[in-house]
Amino acid sequence: MRISAFRKAHFNAAHRLHVAQWSDEQNKEFFGLCNNPNYHGHNYNLVVKITGEVDPVSGYLMDLGILKKIIDEEVIDRFDHRNLNLDTAEFKHLNPTAENIAGVIWNKLRLRLDKNLELTVTLYETERNYVEYSGE
Amino acid sequence: MRISAFRKAHFNAAHRLHVAQWSDEQNKEFFGLCNNPNYHGHNYNLVVKITGEVDPVSGYLMDLGILKKIIDEEVIDRFDHRNLNLDTAEFKHLNPTAENIAGVIWNKLRLRLDKNLELTVTLYETERNYVEYSGE
Amino acid sequence: MRISAFRKAHFNAAHRLHVAQWSDEQNKEFFGLCNNPNYHGHNYNLVVKITGEVDPVSGYLMDLGILKKIIDEEVIDRFDHRNLNLDTAEFKHLNPTAENIAGVIWNKLRLRLDKNLELTVTLYETERNYVEYSGE
Amino acid sequence: MRISAFRKAHFNAAHRLHVAQWSDEQNKEFFGLCNNPNYHGHNYNLVVKITGEVDPVSGYLMDLGILKKIIDEEVIDRFDHRNLNLDTAEFKHLNPTAENIAGVIWNKLRLRLDKNLELTVTLYETERNYVEYSGE
Amino acid sequence: MRISAFRKAHFNAAHRLHVAQWSDEQNKEFFGLCNNPNYHGHNYNLVVKITGEVDPVSGYLMDLGILKKIIDEEVIDRFDHRNLNLDTAEFKHLNPTAENIAGVIWNKLRLRLDKNLELTVTLYETERNYVEYSGE
Amino acid sequence: MRISAFRKAHFNAAHRLHVAQWSDEQNKEFFGLCNNPNYHGHNYNLVVKITGEVDPVSGYLMDLGILKKIIDEEVIDRFDHRNLNLDTAEFKHLNPTAENIAGVIWNKLRLRLDKNLELTVTLYETERNYVEYSGE
Repeated sequence: MRISAFRKAHFNAAHRLHVAQWSDEQNKEFFGLCNNPNYHGHNYNLVVKITGEVDPVSGYLMDLGILKKIIDEEVIDRFDHRNLNLDTAEFKHLNPTAENIAGVIWNKLRLRLDKNLELTVTLYETERNYVEYSGE
Repeated sequence: MRISAFRKAHFNAAHRLHVAQWSDEQNKEFFGLCNNPNYHGHNYNLVVKITGEVDPVSGYLMDLGILKKIIDEEVIDRFDHRNLNLDTAEFKHLNPTAENIAGVIWNKLRLRLDKNLELTVTLYETERNYVEYSGE
Repeated sequence: MRISAFRKAHFNAAHRLHVAQWSDEQNKEFFGLCNNPNYHGHNYNLVVKITGEVDPVSGYLMDLGILKKIIDEEVIDRFDHRNLNLDTAEFKHLNPTAENIAGVIWNKLRLRLDKNLELTVTLYETERNYVEYSGE
Repeated sequence: MRISAFRKAHFNAAHRLHVAQWSDEQNKEFFGLCNNPNYHGHNYNLVVKITGEVDPVSGYLMDLGILKKIIDEEVIDRFDHRNLNLDTAEFKHLNPTAENIAGVIWNKLRLRLDKNLELTVTLYETERNYVEYSGE
Repeated sequence: MRISAFRKAHFNAAHRLHVAQWSDEQNKEFFGLCNNPNYHGHNYNLVVKITGEVDPVSGYLMDLGILKKIIDEEVIDRFDHRNLNLDTAEFKHLNPTAENIAGVIWNKLRLRLDKNLELTVTLYETERNYVEYSGE
Repeated sequence: MRISAFRKAHFNAAHRLHVAQWSDEQNKEFFGLCNNPNYHGHNYNLVVKITGEVDPVSGYLMDLGILKKIIDEEVIDRFDHRNLNLDTAEFKHLNPTAENIAGVIWNKLRLRLDKNLELTVTLYETERNYVEYSGE
């Protein structure tokens, strides 16, 4: 029995969209208000989806309490109440768009999860804008 | 890096479900209250999903502000605060079920989006009833 | 022990905002798209709040199943899947703004509820626009 | 035109996670608070997704009113306001994890739906924990 | 500056509505499915509202982290993943209706909060049924 | 007929909680992660409630389109995608707690609204933490 299980989490962070190799004018034109040099911020909502075979004895795909712990260690403890551009090694040289944040989170979680589990992360920057990444 | 990005929008419209080639009795029996000749209405919520390669420089799949503008022009400006049966060319001869509205929206957005982007639209008629269309 | 209990319900309806004693131009200028002569529509969400003394034996303020039945009879059966302007006696000569719909619903429910219960109705026209009425 | 349609429903139930062939200590360690011998409970939210060809005349994939009736008969009437472990034949000998409940619901709905429709069920145990099953 | 601050929490519990001094028939007729002798359950959502003067230096009404800790100790640690009728002293002889659960929670929190703060608790038994209590 | 009308809006901003007259240690101990010198951020949701007499001719308490415009000018244009501490005159010397942000917004809107309207603002810092201010 092949199933998907989902766990939601959230973190609050500041960020600024900025491409180092572009001029200030290019950045301002391309990213608009999101390029504010003093940063703005979001309540990021994260949905982690894992897919695999249900254990026939326990009836669990995976203990979601353990998945929560992994999300806390890899994502919440690193990014919650942080400035993504200034406080994290991951986005020192990588533009913290929703797409890139989802990619970074996917890579971190992938290392901690059983190889037999497929992984998808959905990251909500706002209720109206969000992205989904499956490692392809 | 292949990713999906989502943008939500909404519009309020009146409609009536009715098939021209059926008798009034057939329509009433099949569509029930939704066949009310004086129309009823909904707050339609729309989720537009695009899938493709992230631009490695900007970190964007696509500027969601541009996607919002396309949705506004193709969907909101046409359907918001309209009677779908009476005020739109699209549903003069096409029954405005959620399925058909999603199909019409998909076709309009498809024409405006880069050919390398896959497109899926999800249309909520109510919180409990909704449909999803990917152009297949 | 004085408590408030709430019950949510919803109905889908078409309407048009229009004041009979105004010219078409005045109506169009004042109500904008909401004045569309062919109607538009909404998923109305309704919250009914009653306040009074909890029965010390049953631990109930009021059986919310009975409150649901009253809401169904007075509101849902009358307004769901209707055109408020054309299909209802209540809005033949009363402009169906959210304010007036809330007032009509409050008056109908007031007649059916115990006199010792205070009553407030909240009516959501959209997720972003809503009104609240307590009979004052 | 191939489309998916979704219908939401919900039921409230008590349950206990427990594997008969494990010792009490094993169960307590593995399932933690969910193993409480006196049961706890949830508001389960269910999303049923069906996929198939839209009927070109009616514009419907399937009458969602009929789908609602099937969900009521197969799921709500059986599980709502029940103790899954004690009151249902399905979970007398099957651990009522979200995964297993989703599997049981999928099997029941599968028997009632047209063979040409694909079926996926999503079951929310809480807003933060949920599973999805497509019969694979 | 007089302000209200709110903190949300949730817990999952089983319960049964039953009045000891009534016959089984009376209980079954009055409470219906909620009287199931094997219990059913809910995801209870709780909103705690406190009202008082903002501290002009810190700009806080109260540290909501401390409020969270009090809610955890008084409510979550006692009721989460419990059978309210069997596992708690509070509802051994008190019918666990939403009204009574709100009353019990209010009394527990009242003892832990500064006397200058007003207190209201809102308890959601489901998304559609909820109660509010202010200690009157 | 006395009614309340509500309009929702949102803005995304960075902020840091910090009291200038306190030492760094005091600030860190009192505000914890919220004191991060590099800022963090939120999606702030705002609900503006106005209360007054419904105009008997139009059936409106106030045109919510005009209220939206006032909210845009006074709140969204000033605070959206800004760093509250660095980019706004209002919070240069005022700690941007939810309480103080609500107070600032209330004062700005109060100046723009008819004196006969009562005003309450609710500001959500997260889905779980929010405040309400009525000018008392």
